[in-house]
This record gives sequence, structure tokens and C-alpha cells, in this order.
Amino acid sequence: MNLERSRGTRDFLPEEQIVKQEILDKLRLVFELYGYSPLDSPGLERLDVLSSKYAGGSGILKEIFSLKDQGGRELGLRYDLTVPLARIVAMNPNLKLPFKRYHIGEVWRDGPVASARYRQFTQCDADIVGCASMAADAEVLCLARRVFDLLNLDVKIKVSNRKLLNDVLSKFGVAQAKHMDAILSLDKLEKSGRAVVDRELLEKGLNQDQVDSVIGCLCFTGGNKEKLAHVQKIVGDSETINDIKELFSMLDAFKADVEFDPSLARGLTYYTGTIFEVLMQRSEVKSSVAGGGRYDKIIGQFMGKEGFPAVGISFGVDRIYDAYLENHKAGKKTVADVYVIPIKTFSYSFIVAEELRSSGIKVDIDLLQRGPSKNLQYANALKIPY
Amino acid sequence: MNLERSRGTRDFLPEEQIVKQEILDKLRLVFELYGYSPLDSPGLERLDVLSSKYAGGSGILKEIFSLKDQGGRELGLRYDLTVPLARIVAMNPNLKLPFKRYHIGEVWRDGPVASARYRQFTQCDADIVGCASMAADAEVLCLARRVFDLLNLDVKIKVSNRKLLNDVLSKFGVAQAKHMDAILSLDKLEKSGRAVVDRELLEKGLNQDQVDSVIGCLCFTGGNKEKLAHVQKIVGDSETINDIKELFSMLDAFKADVEFDPSLARGLTYYTGTIFEVLMQRSEVKSSVAGGGRYDKIIGQFMGKEGFPAVGISFGVDRIYDAYLENHKAGKKTVADVYVIPIKTFSYSFIVAEELRSSGIKVDIDLLQRGPSKNLQYANALKIPY
Repeated sequence: MNLERSRGTRDFLPEEQIVKQEILDKLRLVFELYGYSPLDSPGLERLDVLSSKYAGGSGILKEIFSLKDQGGRELGLRYDLTVPLARIVAMNPNLKLPFKRYHIGEVWRDGPVASARYRQFTQCDADIVGCASMAADAEVLCLARRVFDLLNLDVKIKVSNRKLLNDVLSKFGVAQAKHMDAILSLDKLEKSGRAVVDRELLEKGLNQDQVDSVIGCLCFTGGNKEKLAHVQKIVGDSETINDIKELFSMLDAFKADVEFDPSLARGLTYYTGTIFEVLMQRSEVKSSVAGGGRYDKIIGQFMGKEGFPAVGISFGVDRIYDAYLENHKAGKKTVADVYVIPIKTFSYSFIVAEELRSSGIKVDIDLLQRGPSKNLQYANALKIPY
Repeated sequence: MNLERSRGTRDFLPEEQIVKQEILDKLRLVFELYGYSPLDSPGLERLDVLSSKYAGGSGILKEIFSLKDQGGRELGLRYDLTVPLARIVAMNPNLKLPFKRYHIGEVWRDGPVASARYRQFTQCDADIVGCASMAADAEVLCLARRVFDLLNLDVKIKVSNRKLLNDVLSKFGVAQAKHMDAILSLDKLEKSGRAVVDRELLEKGLNQDQVDSVIGCLCFTGGNKEKLAHVQKIVGDSETINDIKELFSMLDAFKADVEFDPSLARGLTYYTGTIFEVLMQRSEVKSSVAGGGRYDKIIGQFMGKEGFPAVGISFGVDRIYDAYLENHKAGKKTVADVYVIPIKTFSYSFIVAEELRSSGIKVDIDLLQRGPSKNLQYANALKIPY
């Protein structure tokens, strides 16, 4: 036997798990403040259910850990919490709509192992199913803002609409067939910079005028209102623009601090409207710590319907944990607040400990009958305050 | 695609998960009151790690869901939380001892599907590693008592010692080689009754005198003190008897309501000393809802040492959930305590909802702009109080 974890996974020792648990508790608190109720489902799903989310196929399906049970049934470990949600909504036609649920659970992806890429990680989703109104999108964004405020993490929440990039590309005469490729390049603007994106777009068949116009439109600087007015001037009135305007007028009224970023791309096949991404400010964690949007088609696919409105957000707890540690001392190595050292009084001391516990105090007690100095060493090593 | 769960698994819809979460929160609370800290580890482990717990092989190993990652590594889904604990203790030689941790996590077993037997279920363990003193065993039992008191569940906690049955069988001249078989039959005393056990023991080569003496010794009725005195009179002084006496003198002092049951068998290869089992009183749930004991060898196996003391308890949350529902109305279909119905005042109402949330009140709000009567129907269906 090799004393090893399975590749790409990690343990959370008490010092770490106490912090992770603190984060999860705060997420749960905020979800419940917004009336989202908990849901749980098995990590093991049927392989055909897992494979059905992306009709067109996707890289993610190659990352499914698949296996068979003893009856030869093909199973897999879920790679997200959206597929289980869609399955459950489809299997429970009597659910009251809108159905607002949160789900904290493990997901698995058999992908390349890299920094901040794990093969098993905790996902934490809040979704509203059965509501097409922009009010739902606004609520999810308010919830996200409250989560990060409560965690005392400085984040930027970027918002756009999945269809906006298509509208802009069309406006400047880029053929529909080139949109997907162009969006993949535009997605790199922040990470790789203008020069790289320019070169890629030219290679993909856009001319210099188109590149300048598209990027000029997407990277216009200013407040949300100015950016929106600028984009609207270019693409004209459209359903997309109306949705964005409606969403931002609500977010303004609710004083939700989010940023309209027309260059946001966020995946290709999945979302149907609003999209958003949460990024740390001034942090070593560069990947998004949460993201989501509106996906009005997936759940319908499970129900044999054309569409079924849904919008949600997914929090990457493991990345939030990494960012949280930058600003919060971990330090706590045990949950105990009091350590009782019996000196030849074990039974009596234990009864005292029991009384403290009955008053809600977290108490550890020496079970080894060590001497006072060894015990003080232990209590200091675990940083038990009392 | 078939709209099905993987066989032997279940979903927890909000109405169910709200209750399950309540149980988990109470377990967590009690674990922390006793100074046990949280630990987390991946569900996916290396297959050789999972297989190494039972040196002699065991039925449970046949129930491992096994799979390979894309690199061809052999992996499996954990079937308990003890193997991960042993691996982590062995991989972290600097852990302060005693190491008290709790772990709430999913486990998987590819076994026959039956009532109250699931292929994925939540396990909830509290263990003390690195303490050979009976004080640790006593603490774990006090913790168990407090858990079920807090859950308001009426349970019987049965306690014995793994070696006692061997001592009794030896005393009445049953050869060592027959002990395992005999213990398997004695284990059925409560479930199958005296007649069945008698017949089995005779078939296994005990004579009628031995059967009468053994069962007479184990089924002696009376208080803990009387039963202990009776057993001691028969087997004489021994390490086993001393351990039991020490444990019960502590449990008496701590006023822990537990029952000495010398007939308790609880598995064969795993435990090395104290064993216990928690059973519901007056409930449809007949299987144990928690169980555990001392296992001073397994962790050592992972470290290449002769022994390494450990004692712990495992709570079967899914069975506790089933029992809990017998006495507690489920009923809550949402966590929301307040439902806000905007009447052409959505923005203003949402701001009011936000203020309530800031005061810690769980608020849902109509996002669909339905009329008051539809909204009242919705609020009633979800049983939202305000």
C-alpha cells in the first residue's frame, strides 16, 4: 500500500476544515436569508443522465469518472450540481414553482491536475427554477454580493448577457459562423491583453476595422450607465439590450455593487441570457470564485420541453477558501474553547466539563492523565484560549 | 436517457433535507461541545488504501465501487470514514495526540439494496486517536448519550467488550477454533430468539451444557452491577473484566445512561476492546442507529506499527433520519419564515426584504409578479408562517 491520496484531491485537516466550515456556514446562512432551501442528491448518477446536459458534447464529458455497479449498470460521479437539479425537477413535477434551492456537495472531474484545479472539490449552488423574470437574475446577484460582504472578501462582480457578444459581432459584419471562435479569443482580453487577442482575431478572419470596432465597443470605459448607453448606441434596441437595462435598473435600485462588462464571455453552449462572474480584487486567486447565469434550456431538455427558465450561481468553495486564507488568520487548530486539566480529580473534572458543555461551551479535557506542564504544552499547541 | 437515480440511492428534497440538516447540525454541535474538530477528506481514495483495512479480507471489500482515472490508477469510493482517518493520521506524523476529530461525509457500498440499506449514505463519525485510557471510551459514550438526548430520541445504548464473548466461551470449554462461528450465532440472540441460536450452536458442535451455560451467563438479567458481578464470578478476574469495571465506574460517576449487555457481539475482526451499539426503543427502525468501539490495531497497520490506540463512534444519519421522522413532524417545505408579496411595488418590496435579511430574517419574495391570491396559495403550499 502507498500512503497517498488519489491524485488531484486534498484533505482538510482541522485547522483547514474549521475555516472551510466557517465559509460554508456563511454561504448557507445567506442562501437561507434569501429563502433558498437545502437539497441533497447522490454523488453517483447514471452515466446517461450525466451525459445528457450538453447535447452537442463537451470537453467536460471526457472528464467524468465513470464506473459500473455489480449489476453492470453504467454510472458516473457528478461533475456539477446542475445536472442533479435538472433530473430532480424533471422527476418531481409537483414541485411548487419557482423552486429555489441551494446545494452544497462534492463534484468530481477527471481533468488535468494544476494549481487550484482539483479532481474533487466542493460546489455550492443557489438556483431559481421556473422564473423567467429578470427579478430572479437580480436576486441572485444581490445574494452573491451579500455572500462576499459577509465573508469580508473584496470582489468585483462582472455582469453581462450571453447574447451581447453575438449582437456586437453581427453589428460589425462578422459572419455568424465565426462568432464562436471570435468569442473564445475575446474571452482572453483581460488575461492575455489586447495584442494577443488582436492577432488571434485577425488569424480567425476578422479584418482590422472589425477588430478595432468590436474591441472598442466592448472595452469602452465608464460607469455602468455610460457603458450600456455606448453599447446600445452601437447595436441598437434589441431584446438583449432590454434585458440588460431591466436588470441594471433593478440592481441600481437595490444598490447592488456589480459591474457591467460587455466583454464577459463565460462559456459557450450553456447559458441563454444573463451571465456573471465574481473575481477577487488584489488577490493571488486569479480564477473566478463564483459564476453563473441564466440557462433556460437545460432543464427543459430533461423534461422533453422546449425550455424551462432557470438562473443560478455556483460558488467555488475551494478557491474562496484559498482567497479567504490570505486575509484571515487560520490559526485555530481545534474547536475547543476551554481545556480542563484534572489533577488527580478526573471524575470530578469530567463532571465539571459536562456542565460547561450543557451551557454550550466547547470543552476538551485531558484523557491521558498527563502532568500539568505536558497539558499546558498541549493546550498551547492547539491554541485553546481558556 | 432514463430519468432515474443510480440504484440504491436517494434524493433529499427540501422538506426532507431541512430535517436531515437539523440532525446534522445537532450532531456537529455535540461533537464540538466535546472538543472534536472537523476533518474532511475526498470520497475517492486509492484502491490499495481502501483494501488495506481488513488484513484478512472481508465482505465489505467486495462492495467497493472501484474505477480507474484516466492515468489508469486504481481508485475506489470509500466505504467508511475510518480508512481515511487512518491514512491521514499515518500521513501526518506531527498531529498532536490525542487527536479528536469528527467527520461528516458520504460513503458508498455496492451491496444488495434493501429497506434501510442504501448504496450511498451519510456517515458521521467521532473518534479519539492516541488514547488507550478507558476515559476515552467513557467520553465517546457520554457524547452518544448527549446526541440522542438533544435529538429527543429514545434509545438504548448497549455496551460490552469485544473479548468478553471469547472469555466466556473459553470458560465453558469451547475450543478457540469454534469461537468465531459461535459468536456469529450468539449475535442473533435478540433478533432470532433462543431456540434458533440453541439449534445453531448445537449444530456447530457445542454440547447442550455448554449452550445452556454460555447463554445463561450472557442473558443474566439485572442492573449493570449485578450483570457484571455475575459475569465476573464466571470468568474470573481478567484484563477484559477490569476494563469493563473501570469503564462502568466512570459511566456511573458521569450518570451516563448505558446498559451493560454481555451478549453484544458487533462484528468480528475490527474491534479490540470496548464495543457499543445504539438501538431505537419503540420504533420501526430496528437496525442500530449508531455503533462503535475501540480499535487499537487498524491505524497501526497504516503506520507499520504494532498498535495505535483509537476509539470512536459512527452515527447512521439516514437511519436516524428515518427514526426522527416518526416523532417529529417534517412539514417545513422551505426555510423561509417571511413571504413578501409586492403589489405593483417590486423594487420597494425587494428593498424591504433586503432590510429584513440584514436583520437575520429568512425572506422569500414573489419574483413572478403574480396576483395576491396566487401568492397566498404559494405561501400556504410552502407553509411560510409570515
